[in-house]
Amino acid sequence: MKRYRNGEIWDFEQEMPVTRDGAEVILGLDGGTTSTVCICMPFIPFSDAPLPDPLPLLARAVAGCSNHNSVGEIAARETLEQVMADALLKSGSDRSAVCAVCLAVSGVNHPTDQERIVNWLRDIFPSHVRLYVQNDAVAALASGTLGKLHGCVLIAGTGTIAYGFTEDGREARAAGAGPILGDWGSGYGIAAQALTAIIRAHDGRGPHTMLTSSILDALDLSSPDELIGWTYADPSWARIAALVPIVVSCAEAGDQVSNEILIDSVQELALSVKAVVQRLGLCGKDGMGSFPLVMVGGVLEANKRWDIGKEVINCISKDYPGTVPIRPKVEPAIGAALLAWNFLMKESQKEACKGQ
Amino acid sequence: MKRYRNGEIWDFEQEMPVTRDGAEVILGLDGGTTSTVCICMPFIPFSDAPLPDPLPLLARAVAGCSNHNSVGEIAARETLEQVMADALLKSGSDRSAVCAVCLAVSGVNHPTDQERIVNWLRDIFPSHVRLYVQNDAVAALASGTLGKLHGCVLIAGTGTIAYGFTEDGREARAAGAGPILGDWGSGYGIAAQALTAIIRAHDGRGPHTMLTSSILDALDLSSPDELIGWTYADPSWARIAALVPIVVSCAEAGDQVSNEILIDSVQELALSVKAVVQRLGLCGKDGMGSFPLVMVGGVLEANKRWDIGKEVINCISKDYPGTVPIRPKVEPAIGAALLAWNFLMKESQKEACKGQ
Repeated sequence: MKRYRNGEIWDFEQEMPVTRDGAEVILGLDGGTTSTVCICMPFIPFSDAPLPDPLPLLARAVAGCSNHNSVGEIAARETLEQVMADALLKSGSDRSAVCAVCLAVSGVNHPTDQERIVNWLRDIFPSHVRLYVQNDAVAALASGTLGKLHGCVLIAGTGTIAYGFTEDGREARAAGAGPILGDWGSGYGIAAQALTAIIRAHDGRGPHTMLTSSILDALDLSSPDELIGWTYADPSWARIAALVPIVVSCAEAGDQVSNEILIDSVQELALSVKAVVQRLGLCGKDGMGSFPLVMVGGVLEANKRWDIGKEVINCISKDYPGTVPIRPKVEPAIGAALLAWNFLMKESQKEACKGQ
Repeated sequence: MKRYRNGEIWDFEQEMPVTRDGAEVILGLDGGTTSTVCICMPFIPFSDAPLPDPLPLLARAVAGCSNHNSVGEIAARETLEQVMADALLKSGSDRSAVCAVCLAVSGVNHPTDQERIVNWLRDIFPSHVRLYVQNDAVAALASGTLGKLHGCVLIAGTGTIAYGFTEDGREARAAGAGPILGDWGSGYGIAAQALTAIIRAHDGRGPHTMLTSSILDALDLSSPDELIGWTYADPSWARIAALVPIVVSCAEAGDQVSNEILIDSVQELALSVKAVVQRLGLCGKDGMGSFPLVMVGGVLEANKRWDIGKEVINCISKDYPGTVPIRPKVEPAIGAALLAWNFLMKESQKEACKGQ
């Protein structure tokens, strides 16, 4: 193995000789703006039997932001390397035991993005380790399908994206272009519409809404005029998206303006999924075919009575009755590990075919 | 007169003794994000005769940005002070000749904003000089009404705002809360919708549109995916708003998506004006009363065949047939000077009344 940068990160490999039984492990990473999670799973030998439930986890490590747009490339990479070392240390393992790594991060849109990150990982791990780099939406899909790249995932948190795969490897996405470019069903989109509704009620362009008192109270502001200062004081989309539960509460309390904002959001989120399903033909030629729809993110979680996720599913199922909604029971980092496991399995099947 | 900061700005007053005939002057300033204009007008003695046409201008000076949100308070004030000195120097005059200054800047929303800026101006000018500080929308209104604060102004450039005044001094505004808070008919709003339409056509959520090829060509991009990077690389709203002429061209060429974006924009802009007219009762109790509607900004300028400004007027006139649209023949800095002139006139009338 080469000498690596950030030697101290991996010092534990020398200091505390690992007591291993030769078992191999897989690392799955979910790298986001808020936090980065790395899980370490044992490599389960291939078989036709279903995966064990619950999945055996050796270790889980958490670190801060690894979005290179937020913290810069050097800091992002150090965070990723540290969280992988932590997970291996916790699992009583080291890099020589790793057979595959799947790193799922936002902002991976082109093969060139993947190549750049794989080259960096290549410097950290021995050459036989399989390295996979994916968009974080792909790990979210895999967290619902247990590693199988088939179906569509809808993520709706601060932002929103729909991402789909066919079994023969075609893929398509919709939305995910940020708030300026029309991610209207997202948490940010819902909350920005709510803030706008307050301004419009205040200046006479729109109807009265309960949102005014509810949101001003929550933000400790005394007038809608003060919302302007609050909004532009901090451009963080997540800060605005955090107002979504108030919009849901107002809708549940009968506020018509809030209700319409949520209905719009449902239409927009369903439209993203329908666009992906349509382009990939996930529902088959007759439109009745079955496909998994993995639902991820705060906006889609059960919101008491007004359940955005449930309404989105209803809306999609009207057009595509074969929709099989899945709310993942495992986190995206495990999805990433399962993805690595699935890729490994496909490669070994190919090799087995060649050997025949 | 006191000793002032930035002494060198006013050095010309000592170096080049001003040859004055005792005539007084008024300064009108329009301070914006792109540039700052200061004009110097002779003080025209009060009479019932109409203002001379064209208005006699002594000098015009131009400087850069004086928006304190963009360049900071110190730089903004230095720019404003310099442009006033330039205008006085060009007019062969000095501060002792000034009888009134009207400074119209964006971001003046509360009496406390006005007070802060008046106090600063008070340090620059002799104590007898009348000082007026207004929102830039007020100067835009005055540029159409020749200084009279009555009616409604609609500004639609990068942003949009509607601002109205009654003859008895009540005022109201609509929109002007920036892009996150629903200034949807603005240049930024139109262009952001056009960019969104390209993304939606690309990922299957929306119909095909001519905007795709027209805007990608203009920005020298090869794919809609690249729009995401272009959009977030520079958060300047003006850079996005600059795409409006392309949307207008596409609508004129028959593109349905562009046409709908412009129709939406017309509805939004008209709604802002109607909200102000309604709240102030500018149209009288029967809704038939006459009031001036001053139209300002790039979005409202005659756009060849698809004329947004004309459509906005048509839309408002349906509800308020007494709407008298005015496209100002003079710039907002002159509106500011006329405003000062009008305030002075009112004050002297009051004094005359007291004297009777």
